[in-house]
Amino acid sequence: MSAKAVKRTQVVVVGGGPAGLLLALLLHRADIECVVLERRSRNYVLSRIRAGVLEQGTTDLLRSAGVGARMDRQGLVHDGFDIAWRGAMLHIDLRDLTGGKTVMVYGQTEITRDLYDALDAAGVAVIHEALDVQPGDVATTTPFVTFHTESGGTQRIDCDFVAGCDGFYGVCRSIIPPAALETFERVYPFGWLGILVRKPPIQDELIYAHHARGFALCSMRNPQLSRYYVQCRLGERVEDWSDTRFFDELSARLPSHVADRLQRGPSIEKSIAPLRSFVAEPMRHGTLFLAGDAAHIVPPTGAKGLNLAVSDVHYLARAFIAHYQDRDDGLLGSYSPDALARVWKAERFSWWFTAMIHRFEDDGSFGHRIQEAEFDVLAGSKAAQTALAENYVGLPF
Amino acid sequence: MSAKAVKRTQVVVVGGGPAGLLLALLLHRADIECVVLERRSRNYVLSRIRAGVLEQGTTDLLRSAGVGARMDRQGLVHDGFDIAWRGAMLHIDLRDLTGGKTVMVYGQTEITRDLYDALDAAGVAVIHEALDVQPGDVATTTPFVTFHTESGGTQRIDCDFVAGCDGFYGVCRSIIPPAALETFERVYPFGWLGILVRKPPIQDELIYAHHARGFALCSMRNPQLSRYYVQCRLGERVEDWSDTRFFDELSARLPSHVADRLQRGPSIEKSIAPLRSFVAEPMRHGTLFLAGDAAHIVPPTGAKGLNLAVSDVHYLARAFIAHYQDRDDGLLGSYSPDALARVWKAERFSWWFTAMIHRFEDDGSFGHRIQEAEFDVLAGSKAAQTALAENYVGLPF
Repeated sequence: MSAKAVKRTQVVVVGGGPAGLLLALLLHRADIECVVLERRSRNYVLSRIRAGVLEQGTTDLLRSAGVGARMDRQGLVHDGFDIAWRGAMLHIDLRDLTGGKTVMVYGQTEITRDLYDALDAAGVAVIHEALDVQPGDVATTTPFVTFHTESGGTQRIDCDFVAGCDGFYGVCRSIIPPAALETFERVYPFGWLGILVRKPPIQDELIYAHHARGFALCSMRNPQLSRYYVQCRLGERVEDWSDTRFFDELSARLPSHVADRLQRGPSIEKSIAPLRSFVAEPMRHGTLFLAGDAAHIVPPTGAKGLNLAVSDVHYLARAFIAHYQDRDDGLLGSYSPDALARVWKAERFSWWFTAMIHRFEDDGSFGHRIQEAEFDVLAGSKAAQTALAENYVGLPF
Repeated sequence: MSAKAVKRTQVVVVGGGPAGLLLALLLHRADIECVVLERRSRNYVLSRIRAGVLEQGTTDLLRSAGVGARMDRQGLVHDGFDIAWRGAMLHIDLRDLTGGKTVMVYGQTEITRDLYDALDAAGVAVIHEALDVQPGDVATTTPFVTFHTESGGTQRIDCDFVAGCDGFYGVCRSIIPPAALETFERVYPFGWLGILVRKPPIQDELIYAHHARGFALCSMRNPQLSRYYVQCRLGERVEDWSDTRFFDELSARLPSHVADRLQRGPSIEKSIAPLRSFVAEPMRHGTLFLAGDAAHIVPPTGAKGLNLAVSDVHYLARAFIAHYQDRDDGLLGSYSPDALARVWKAERFSWWFTAMIHRFEDDGSFGHRIQEAEFDVLAGSKAAQTALAENYVGLPF
């Protein structure tokens, strides 16, 4: 669809990642007009490496939006995961502990691709390489969004609502006056160095490893594509980490009988990510609604980021649908508290799981012993394992 | 029994608090000779105000030692407790969550009195006002303890073992060479200001209250004697806290419908205690064995201090009995790791419960929101409540 064709729509969705795309699809399914504006090219978006451990609520919502078919064919259902520490492995049996709930390993990139395909088939406008996106008049009921494209000069789309799904560094949160926004943040004193390698994963399920040398995570994208991480110091440089050094470090942090199974191979991606907790409140300003990373960030431990974006989209789509179909603005009014109640619980879990399983040099010896005791208590308590599992599979929407 | 009569015994117990007295009684019941040395007078010891929430393992051990009768008559069985925050009360039903376990409210002073009575009846030597107690030759199998009394000059008792039950500031830990001891410590940036008042408690069960003004605890000694605490800043002075100011502050930290029930009265004791976590490892040095506060301290939140002392005594009595009755030193060898495994789990719980329910000014707004979310998660998860309850009623010995 040509960008020039659109002068007015009901909802402008800023950001063509999974949150924005899913929101657009849910709105379209409810006969609500929308346009998606994405700063990058489609190829760029689809080349981003992202996590992909999906909660049951996420997979349910994707299915109900009609984009679950390939996920159900190719995704890997995980009934549990392992926690490794002091040479032992503790299996967290999610299905048993939660009365049948599981998680699905399916890359965010794959979800994004499925969503693009569905939006293309539905004829929803997704405008790529929309530059200098600027929402305007969001304090009024007649907001608009301006942007320009390489080819088409400056454009303006008038709308009823703007959905800010443009991520942590996006424009939408930044246009809210500081006095109208309260922010909460914690930065962690380490990063994750991750590699992608075209080898079968070390085992079928994920391993979260605690070690005096630092945390390590064994994950995967599919049965032939492994994703491994090691906790690293801030300021480390990727170029200082050869594949050999990476795999040596990873092996040292795993129980030896597990490390023996590690299949090494040349990395096809290697990068360092910082860890951050962040929340902006409220998630609404006038006719601008924030969803996903635009409003909050979690550290990657436990993989809550994408799942939180999806639950935001669930609350937001529901609110827009009530507005247009039932002329009821109650859910729009409660969107921010509804979404934030779930966000804070996931922020708590992500913070706790991060704190539990990483090595904090500043913690001192007392903190390190407390951390060890936490594993001992977890290993000995089905209740503690259940509390962990409930959060890992995702709290209800 | 006269102090002069004793020149040699099997175990010298240093410290006449509940740990030392219970150990002496258990050893006597097993026909092991022992002498208890206490620096203070009996009246002094019995005038100390201490907590008294007893785990089931503690009450079981007291009963098996033959000192459970008065406790079972006068102690208050508590099936649960309340957590108050944001104007709400969350009931933690210990009995339901743990499959029937409860706690017993019975003051440490009462336990101490019962133990003195039992030791007197049994004719076990408890030497009060034993000054300048000094264990000697504890790196050998022929240790001794010297001390003097006001009346009797310097005395020496030779023995097989020394049990250091003389508290955090006692001599026993201090004589272990620093190189042989690893210590772990956390000091908390606040204290507890407590009062004792001769009025019926605000309710039958305890209330742990979290509030932006700080933590508060409503406890009791018996149905006519209430014990209340408020978190205060370090460096506060008791004389700056009138009873009126104390009760006003306590009321402000409770849900208003609860505060309305508070019965004020003149305080009969008022004091400020700092909060500290501390562990010394190992708990054995040669023929010297540490038990209770001599080896570890917990903050009072959750009342683990006395219970940990009792579980140490359980492990230590068992080990001495195996040595003398079965000539098996395996349990003496494993005393320190056995006791420490349980100590560290209780240290973790006490640290966690303290961190969860107090106000940390340095936490910043993110930390405060995480704390709020923790209550929301706890209120919504039977598994999380169970994990809390399991620790509160006491992990198995």
